[in-house]
Amino acid sequence: MKVVITGAAGFLGSRLAKALLSSNSSLAVSELVLVDVTAPGAPPARVPVRAVALDLAAPGAAEQIIEPDTAVVFHLAAIVSGNAEKDFDLGFRVNFDATRALLEAARRRANNVIFVMSSTVAVYGGKLPDAPDEDFAPMPQTSYGCAKAMAELLAREYGRRGWADARVVRLPTVAVRGGSANTAISSFASDIVREPLAGRAAVVPVPPELRMWVSGPATAVHNLVHAAALPAEAWRARRVVSLPGLTVATGEMAAALARVCGAACAARVRWAPDAALAAMMGSVPARLAAHAALRLGFREDQSYDDLIREYIRDDLGGRVPQL
Amino acid sequence: MKVVITGAAGFLGSRLAKALLSSNSSLAVSELVLVDVTAPGAPPARVPVRAVALDLAAPGAAEQIIEPDTAVVFHLAAIVSGNAEKDFDLGFRVNFDATRALLEAARRRANNVIFVMSSTVAVYGGKLPDAPDEDFAPMPQTSYGCAKAMAELLAREYGRRGWADARVVRLPTVAVRGGSANTAISSFASDIVREPLAGRAAVVPVPPELRMWVSGPATAVHNLVHAAALPAEAWRARRVVSLPGLTVATGEMAAALARVCGAACAARVRWAPDAALAAMMGSVPARLAAHAALRLGFREDQSYDDLIREYIRDDLGGRVPQL
Repeated sequence: MKVVITGAAGFLGSRLAKALLSSNSSLAVSELVLVDVTAPGAPPARVPVRAVALDLAAPGAAEQIIEPDTAVVFHLAAIVSGNAEKDFDLGFRVNFDATRALLEAARRRANNVIFVMSSTVAVYGGKLPDAPDEDFAPMPQTSYGCAKAMAELLAREYGRRGWADARVVRLPTVAVRGGSANTAISSFASDIVREPLAGRAAVVPVPPELRMWVSGPATAVHNLVHAAALPAEAWRARRVVSLPGLTVATGEMAAALARVCGAACAARVRWAPDAALAAMMGSVPARLAAHAALRLGFREDQSYDDLIREYIRDDLGGRVPQL
Repeated sequence: MKVVITGAAGFLGSRLAKALLSSNSSLAVSELVLVDVTAPGAPPARVPVRAVALDLAAPGAAEQIIEPDTAVVFHLAAIVSGNAEKDFDLGFRVNFDATRALLEAARRRANNVIFVMSSTVAVYGGKLPDAPDEDFAPMPQTSYGCAKAMAELLAREYGRRGWADARVVRLPTVAVRGGSANTAISSFASDIVREPLAGRAAVVPVPPELRMWVSGPATAVHNLVHAAALPAEAWRARRVVSLPGLTVATGEMAAALARVCGAACAARVRWAPDAALAAMMGSVPARLAAHAALRLGFREDQSYDDLIREYIRDDLGGRVPQL
């Protein structure tokens, strides 16, 4: 099957591409199209891989990558929360308009293509129960969450119309991310481990009590592939599903770091709460009810300690640096 | 204050204009701008009234009617449910894109204008509790409901950003409507009274047991004005509110007609259920929890008998025709 990934140069997109090209992928990929604003690196592969540099919100762009024989689209391209809050217009152009353009291209050019879209725990906001499920109304408190909530509704509608086999997964904050900090307001959930392990201080802009809903990169990638691999019937009743995660306070993250990497490493974590950012993060739920996802066989992480070990294994070659 | 009504040639829009121009209006209107695809009739008034023919989704159209001194916009223009289901693109263009254009014009041109938007009970669909409140997630089963649910989110976001004082009211099905049947899938809720009183048969495409959430035109207009007249603080926590209504089965509507107008009149009601339409109507809730609206002082109707009497009073000059 021919598969498209948008946001393929990103953290999750590049890992998803590798997973799909591996010999034990549950999707039988025959051709891979990697799309991002700058052409993503195309890993060596036994199937054709095409890397495309494209502004997805530009007129005609979506039609260039969704073709009559496209079987699956993984739509991961997004302007993340911090940036979308700063630049509303850019955020909506990518997070909403580009999604709409892709859905339209799917409707016009493809045959009920499997359309996996990454959404976010940040569709929720305001006064919340302890663990909202998919029946709870998204009342986002960020422009990122709002554009995603609108895109969710539109994807559901294209699914209802039979124009795209839409499958929306709400991802927890993915941590620990390698590379450098991105502009997501939640990026400190990765900084808190990555920076101390690189011998640098991690400055956490929220209080130690602030709890977050997190998931490891390997689980996130596994679950994206699982979303595409499930039969169409599994998605018909409910096209939007909250993925499982872990509820972890930033103080617990630092404690886990001490357990896995030692007290000296964890001592590099500093708290310097920023009121505006803490308020924005505090409006996002620290836990989602993920019953529906678990019933559909989505995977869940076991502990934040494991997420630190995953980072050490996948990004640091398995060795905790002696600092 | 300068007030704009979109959809001003429509059933509710024209009544709203009259109410705002009446001497006992709770809004001190100093200028009224009436907008629709064809120029609405401008009633004689003691203040300037401008009638504008405009396609609101056309580039630059919204900027023509929202000006720096605009104080209130009532955005009622919509492609109703039946039509929006038949013509998805037209429906989204008006129900979503035009709303977005108006909000953008408000952001760019006006000063936190009061933006009252009519939304609908049809944002809800699928598996529902008996009476969903505003915390229950909209999962629309029509393109009309979907575009409105998306527009609700966008209006909330412009409210959160401080770009427009957005106030969204979810209207029940408004009945009894005078004039001819419109293309809303719920139009039979008016036909069932209007047609028998005109000596014609009313053919009801749903079973007598099908319950609906309805409100009379006078209450709907009153509540639209109330939405604009409430202080800004009343809307800050929750910018989307479900208006009160009555839960009435179509069989009970016919029984009310017999009580108010006689058995011979009610005998003109025929049932000829259409499976597709009945399924679509059956997916819309028959009752919404309207606690929030009642706390804010919105008005509720007392009985469907009263709605029949209201129609006879306002549309038939107070006389039940002898048929």
